[in-house]
Amino acid sequence: MQTLKVNLGDRSYPIYVGAGILDSLGQRLQESGLARKVAVVTNPTVAQLYLDAVHGSLDHAGFEVVPILVPDGEEHKTFKSLATIYDRLIAERCERKSCVLALGGGVIGDLAGFAAATYLRGVPYVQVPTTLLAQVDSSVGGKTGVNHENGKNLIGAFYQPKLVLIDVNVLASLPHRELVAGLAEVIKYGIIEDPQLFRDVEKNLAKIIALDRELLQRVIVTSCSIKARIVETDEREENQRAVLNFGHTIGHALEAATDYREFLHGEAVGIGMVKAVMLSVQHGFCDQQTFERILKVIKKAGLPSEIPARLSMQSVIAAMQLDKKAAGGRIKFVMSEGIGKTRFHWLSPGEVLSALER
Amino acid sequence: MQTLKVNLGDRSYPIYVGAGILDSLGQRLQESGLARKVAVVTNPTVAQLYLDAVHGSLDHAGFEVVPILVPDGEEHKTFKSLATIYDRLIAERCERKSCVLALGGGVIGDLAGFAAATYLRGVPYVQVPTTLLAQVDSSVGGKTGVNHENGKNLIGAFYQPKLVLIDVNVLASLPHRELVAGLAEVIKYGIIEDPQLFRDVEKNLAKIIALDRELLQRVIVTSCSIKARIVETDEREENQRAVLNFGHTIGHALEAATDYREFLHGEAVGIGMVKAVMLSVQHGFCDQQTFERILKVIKKAGLPSEIPARLSMQSVIAAMQLDKKAAGGRIKFVMSEGIGKTRFHWLSPGEVLSALER
Repeated sequence: MQTLKVNLGDRSYPIYVGAGILDSLGQRLQESGLARKVAVVTNPTVAQLYLDAVHGSLDHAGFEVVPILVPDGEEHKTFKSLATIYDRLIAERCERKSCVLALGGGVIGDLAGFAAATYLRGVPYVQVPTTLLAQVDSSVGGKTGVNHENGKNLIGAFYQPKLVLIDVNVLASLPHRELVAGLAEVIKYGIIEDPQLFRDVEKNLAKIIALDRELLQRVIVTSCSIKARIVETDEREENQRAVLNFGHTIGHALEAATDYREFLHGEAVGIGMVKAVMLSVQHGFCDQQTFERILKVIKKAGLPSEIPARLSMQSVIAAMQLDKKAAGGRIKFVMSEGIGKTRFHWLSPGEVLSALER
Repeated sequence: MQTLKVNLGDRSYPIYVGAGILDSLGQRLQESGLARKVAVVTNPTVAQLYLDAVHGSLDHAGFEVVPILVPDGEEHKTFKSLATIYDRLIAERCERKSCVLALGGGVIGDLAGFAAATYLRGVPYVQVPTTLLAQVDSSVGGKTGVNHENGKNLIGAFYQPKLVLIDVNVLASLPHRELVAGLAEVIKYGIIEDPQLFRDVEKNLAKIIALDRELLQRVIVTSCSIKARIVETDEREENQRAVLNFGHTIGHALEAATDYREFLHGEAVGIGMVKAVMLSVQHGFCDQQTFERILKVIKKAGLPSEIPARLSMQSVIAAMQLDKKAAGGRIKFVMSEGIGKTRFHWLSPGEVLSALER
């Protein structure tokens, strides 16, 4: 097992990464000074796989467990699911020292985290991510939130967990499509920050997809470390943290334009990254060779790389205008300057549109 | 005009207190580095009185104003009102640098503050409180939130404003009953922290109620200073900040047990303070003379001091069990040890009940 730390003053926390460490969850919570009740927010799919193990470990460590099930899927990251969580927390008399634990993927993490951030004006919470995407991205850094009918994550809070526990063994039960979607974020870290990670993925893609534990743990630890360092310098995304949105401006817009029904988040980000590098080449920030190299690894991973022809570009651009990173009608776009290097560039939605249409 | 400061590191902010300073609002926002759009959250009553003045001042300073009206009253401090605010912020394309301004009493401040805390994971906000209660209490310290059908403020966030502007002149339009309710919080600051403030209110009660500007400004500045110092030592109410809940444990329970329809918040706190001092006497923390003195000023102010006989004590106690300050089924009760001094004492709801029944 490896332990990383996110250093944020009195909001610092450890990330534990290892194979088969789910059983130590109760002990880790104890070590973090948590006590009494733990509300475990999860969905029926994950509950069937891992709720018993989590329940057992927490029980063994003396915690009272309150399971809270919400429906599965991005379309349920809503105020309605949030109300379900609040109602149960209140009915079970959860208090300020009780803890909310997210057991699941990004949707569960975002929902449970926002509930924890806002129940009684904030209670402790713990992330136990069960998808690769959540393990390398959404469980670290404190972004929580719900979707609004007009856009993703429009309502939310920055709220850090008390600890994150990542068991790579749980990826064995993850559908292949979701594993690949999670890889998009790993590839992203390589592109924005770490040529060596990028080469590692290029070289060992087949083994990673075949769930080689050692490789998985290595790319997860590297990804989480990169994210932790970025979050430490800019917790509330006032500046540099926005590099993490590489590929996400177009990615989010694609998800919104398809009502979150067509793409997994990582798939949309796959297309978004290809388009972001294409824009970077068009603007002279990046060479064609880098574009080819990135496109190749995305395709090889099995991620989509093209905006489906039937999608109206106008609907994608309209979704982009609601982007949280927009200011004065312009969008802070993350451009690539080659593997491991980025720069910000302000673009109007029209400029993005004309670039995509070329 | 007097300027106070709440010192909370990078979340520090000024409180401006004066007579007739509403016109300088736009300028103050500029000085705080705010820009572009300002969403002014208010209710129809306050809008009719002050929206023109606020709009004019912001307009003059170059801000684009987006008025957002929500219904008046504690029963509207709900997710429904919050949804109204979110929908408008999104429809008007408010961005991360846009600002949410609360123009109104405690309900407006709590709603607008929570909307600001959670829209796009947090946008700047400004408090322009128009009731005495909001001026001396809810506008300072960053508590925001909405009610749940099971209890008050069960959902919320700690989120500090960028500035607070308090114009004592607006109190001229405040109904007498609300002015008196606000005085309950001023009296509270005297009881928990400041014998001189308590004497000031005892001595000048009639003049304060007759809206003597100089006196009003003095007690508001003193009250805000006390609150600011307490919030500075314990922003998230992990310990000492809980002294501000003096009179509020029973007060909140009374509000909940009457569906927020019978008492104004300050009125319920008036009764709650009398009962809290009574409990303090019963436990030997406070002498009977102090009790008489506090009871006298509360009665003289025109605040209620008795729990209405028709109210079931059981319903009050049931509401108390949902108190955010509860832990392990016991309640952290704020006891008085004489004017200017408090101590915490853990009580079970049963102990509170039997004390109230004596």
